[in-house]
Amino acid sequence: MVMQDILGLIQPPDFKLMVQAMAHLDRLTKPRESLGRLEALAAQYVMITGELKPSVPRGMVFTFAADHGIAIEGVSAYPSEVTGQMVLNFLRGGAGVNVLARHTGMAVRVVDIGVAHDFGSVPDLIHKKVMYGTKNFLLEPAMSRKQAEHAVLVGAELAMEAVEEGIGLVGTGDMGIGNTTPSAAITAVMTGRPVTEVTGRGTGIDDAVHARKISVIQRALDLHRPNRADALDVLAKVGGLEIGGLAGLILGAAAKRVPVVLDGFIAGAAALIAVELQPLCRSYLIASHRSVERGHRAVLDHIRIKPLLDLDLRLGEGTGACLGMSLVCAAIKIYTEMATFDEAGVSEKR
Amino acid sequence: MVMQDILGLIQPPDFKLMVQAMAHLDRLTKPRESLGRLEALAAQYVMITGELKPSVPRGMVFTFAADHGIAIEGVSAYPSEVTGQMVLNFLRGGAGVNVLARHTGMAVRVVDIGVAHDFGSVPDLIHKKVMYGTKNFLLEPAMSRKQAEHAVLVGAELAMEAVEEGIGLVGTGDMGIGNTTPSAAITAVMTGRPVTEVTGRGTGIDDAVHARKISVIQRALDLHRPNRADALDVLAKVGGLEIGGLAGLILGAAAKRVPVVLDGFIAGAAALIAVELQPLCRSYLIASHRSVERGHRAVLDHIRIKPLLDLDLRLGEGTGACLGMSLVCAAIKIYTEMATFDEAGVSEKR
Repeated sequence: MVMQDILGLIQPPDFKLMVQAMAHLDRLTKPRESLGRLEALAAQYVMITGELKPSVPRGMVFTFAADHGIAIEGVSAYPSEVTGQMVLNFLRGGAGVNVLARHTGMAVRVVDIGVAHDFGSVPDLIHKKVMYGTKNFLLEPAMSRKQAEHAVLVGAELAMEAVEEGIGLVGTGDMGIGNTTPSAAITAVMTGRPVTEVTGRGTGIDDAVHARKISVIQRALDLHRPNRADALDVLAKVGGLEIGGLAGLILGAAAKRVPVVLDGFIAGAAALIAVELQPLCRSYLIASHRSVERGHRAVLDHIRIKPLLDLDLRLGEGTGACLGMSLVCAAIKIYTEMATFDEAGVSEKR
Repeated sequence: MVMQDILGLIQPPDFKLMVQAMAHLDRLTKPRESLGRLEALAAQYVMITGELKPSVPRGMVFTFAADHGIAIEGVSAYPSEVTGQMVLNFLRGGAGVNVLARHTGMAVRVVDIGVAHDFGSVPDLIHKKVMYGTKNFLLEPAMSRKQAEHAVLVGAELAMEAVEEGIGLVGTGDMGIGNTTPSAAITAVMTGRPVTEVTGRGTGIDDAVHARKISVIQRALDLHRPNRADALDVLAKVGGLEIGGLAGLILGAAAKRVPVVLDGFIAGAAALIAVELQPLCRSYLIASHRSVERGHRAVLDHIRIKPLLDLDLRLGEGTGACLGMSLVCAAIKIYTEMATFDEAGVSEKR
């Protein structure tokens, strides 16, 4: 499948379905709209999927891992080998995303889309390596346009296959030492905000490293001048492979009428790419939480989605996505399991 | 057991335990504090319970139901018989709290602490009726001081019994047509804020009813002049039986070193009573969410606790508490199930 085919499959959602869902919610034994955003989530789910009597979906988080050439500039608090080490931690079930996925009943799939390490034949790892980490985008483009497109297609195909196998809710996850740097670069380009405003502390860098990170991003943008109207150009020049994979995941799920629950800032950068490629995919997005990472606010404002949670998270991996997916399932259960006023013999508003 | 015994059992938490818990959290494979409020919750749980290696607790929501004499003044959008009808809906599992309790793995107990209806012998209903609804506090005190104390003791004993039977996490729930009116009255007295500032729309009243509600509360406060330094006086004069029961639930759980997850505004009014009776119980409180009901903000500011969620909920019943309790369990699992840097062979921050 080529990019244009996937983009063409994404349809505008049918707002009539949302109105029908809201009418059903108003018959349930509760004051109108008293379950607030859970009701809005249920109505959005119905609108996206077209299922007026939905069952609770099986949810899956895709955690894309990749390395970043830019890490050599000293923009992260952790060494690059942590990316590969954490992939193994995910596969053993010991990371934050594993714990929260088990807690919320979600499956986790770990995708090597560009780790700078040879895993050999590790069971359960999805091998989709596009390259051994991006190049240092302070010196050259992070990847070629072809590699950027390849990364997006990997994500799209994984989402579409998962939906064909029965997944009804997709979550985004990421692992990549250094990946708040390309995410901030993408956010600066796509939202038009100054680099200083969208560049945060990542895994916990000090003032000096933060200043260097801002300078690195600014110099890279001055060098490459990415074209914000051409998302693949931006992704290739200052992006990351996991960001490309996640952009594709969003597009693939939307093409199959399945909602995508975004994790934090890295997912947000991917959403900026996906929405630029196909603005219709915006309706399929659910923001699980607002990250501590400062650029995330700019992303959410730009895409105009309001996060469900604000728990000072900044881990990534898909941890916030798991919590958000659980709220989506809660909303669907409210929609399908609550008694109506008639069924319960409860008097209505006078 | 008498009130003074319960109040005397509540101990100040040991902050050294919180420090120990935070040291453990820093050894887990994530950047420091990157799971934000989940980490803080885990540390609070360890501090409250004293368990440095906690297991995931069994959680239980107590939904106290009672009627309100003040409802005759037309302060609610629903007729009073809905209280009893909803009790039956809870027992059949068709209400919002049932759905969210099933979703999050919590048990629900429904307590008749003052419904103006005779249920006869309904299975599973906990019969603790103090009286058939409060009196109309525009004309006379809602209840006697003795009845107020009785309601608090009912709640405290239920919490203590539950903990003895193995419950490690308690949530608050409420049902009572008209109960945002006594809650607003209590909030005005205990926080010293004007009635207009703490009186909201409850189940969804229009401007005219809202103006009447404010006037009713103001006149009742002018008539009774409740003494804010004497919480039982406030509860008796302008309170509600479920609010008394919930205040007791908080105190009983705190006496047994078990955290209490508060639902919304009604739980908040109960917390104001409980904290006035025993300020030490504050450390045992977790606010699940910020309700749409406007007085809730004043409550949370006054007790100085920050809600976990902000999902525009205003249903009550314990719906928000279930979601908050699930986050507490998530936090405990993060604390106990994540691999450490050593175990996972992941490099630490450089």
